[in-house]
Amino acid sequence: MKRIETCFSPALYEGDRHKGEFVVIIDILRASSAICTAFANGVESIIPVATVAEAREYKQKGYLVAAERDGYVLDFADFGNSPFNFTKEKVGGKTIVYSTTNGTGSIHKAEGAGKIVVGSFLNITALTDMIIGSDMDVVLFCAGWKNRFSLEDTLGAGSFAERLLESGRFSTICDSTFAAIDLWKQAKVDLWGYIQKAAQRSRLRDKGLDDCIQFCLEQDFTDSVPCFREGALVD
Amino acid sequence: MKRIETCFSPALYEGDRHKGEFVVIIDILRASSAICTAFANGVESIIPVATVAEAREYKQKGYLVAAERDGYVLDFADFGNSPFNFTKEKVGGKTIVYSTTNGTGSIHKAEGAGKIVVGSFLNITALTDMIIGSDMDVVLFCAGWKNRFSLEDTLGAGSFAERLLESGRFSTICDSTFAAIDLWKQAKVDLWGYIQKAAQRSRLRDKGLDDCIQFCLEQDFTDSVPCFREGALVD
Repeated sequence: MKRIETCFSPALYEGDRHKGEFVVIIDILRASSAICTAFANGVESIIPVATVAEAREYKQKGYLVAAERDGYVLDFADFGNSPFNFTKEKVGGKTIVYSTTNGTGSIHKAEGAGKIVVGSFLNITALTDMIIGSDMDVVLFCAGWKNRFSLEDTLGAGSFAERLLESGRFSTICDSTFAAIDLWKQAKVDLWGYIQKAAQRSRLRDKGLDDCIQFCLEQDFTDSVPCFREGALVD
Repeated sequence: MKRIETCFSPALYEGDRHKGEFVVIIDILRASSAICTAFANGVESIIPVATVAEAREYKQKGYLVAAERDGYVLDFADFGNSPFNFTKEKVGGKTIVYSTTNGTGSIHKAEGAGKIVVGSFLNITALTDMIIGSDMDVVLFCAGWKNRFSLEDTLGAGSFAERLLESGRFSTICDSTFAAIDLWKQAKVDLWGYIQKAAQRSRLRDKGLDDCIQFCLEQDFTDSVPCFREGALVD
């Protein structure tokens, strides 16, 4: 029986305890969903960078750069954080550099884990199968928002955890996992309705960036599972 | 309209944002419940200390000292962390020193707030009335367990938040508060049943310290609201 743990914020991530484990980075609105979409559309690889300075350096070296802070595209970047930016035409066959407020920092925080992958509703079945096949302990790592708890990432974690428990191969004694599952059970009967109260839903609406939310809640848009290896995400 | 925020762990507490606000420290199993019981039983004041070394110093000065780590009474202490220790006979009219794994550290972390009080199910109605009367923004600060999210503190926060929203004087845009309320709504129909899956419930059972859990979930055992003032908790 393998173990499920859930971490609600990068500030709560206990790297020393998760060495060698299978870590799923969940940033539903929008980094995880955008990264999964990019791989569905044939991106070759994505280099996640934590800081704006690093993103700028890569731009100067000629890379295509996706970079945002608080939802706004950085001035030097080619595009921002909406999954709709990552089209076949723009990213197919390319290596791009990506920096976001929360998601890409979490990937770096997880270094030292046995496996680091990007999870969203868009690749939930493919990724769940991969986790089950790995026979490893799993950490559902919610990127949150500026170290705060976020509802949408918690619901994503709850959805993964529910499926893993149903497989019969996983168990949990983690309070965060129980909470995520119970919130997911409440939310899933009307996910779109439930997500309306999430702070990130309001933030995106206020900036006119909420056109992609319904898409980000869609299950199984792709079979791609972006895995972090030697500094880059690859399929 | 005043604002409710919920903080799920000392590691997530944003002291700079909560200056001047009304902070409720919630450590249901067991520090909050024990402190409320001590005041119900006539303790004069409680000096919360964060470290074992400080607790030991106070003992040498002749104080009655309650001190535990991971549920175990420290060797030099007079008693531990069960509310059943804080009887009229032992604490009535006295000033005691108190140090616990999570609860007392959270009180110190909140210093700089406008008001710091100790909340539990045992004093929920009296404290809710005080919060409403204060006309201040409120932070429901879950002590958690070694910086981790804990179910029982979250349910406590959800119960306070539900009552505050029902008063019509408070609103929230905080994801943690929404989550706490939704978990509380699920749990309250059978709180004793729900709490069985909490990690702290198992920790206390493993140590034979779970005799007090049902008591800690009782509402309105006392009208006392322990307030932190000039280094000590007073009624």
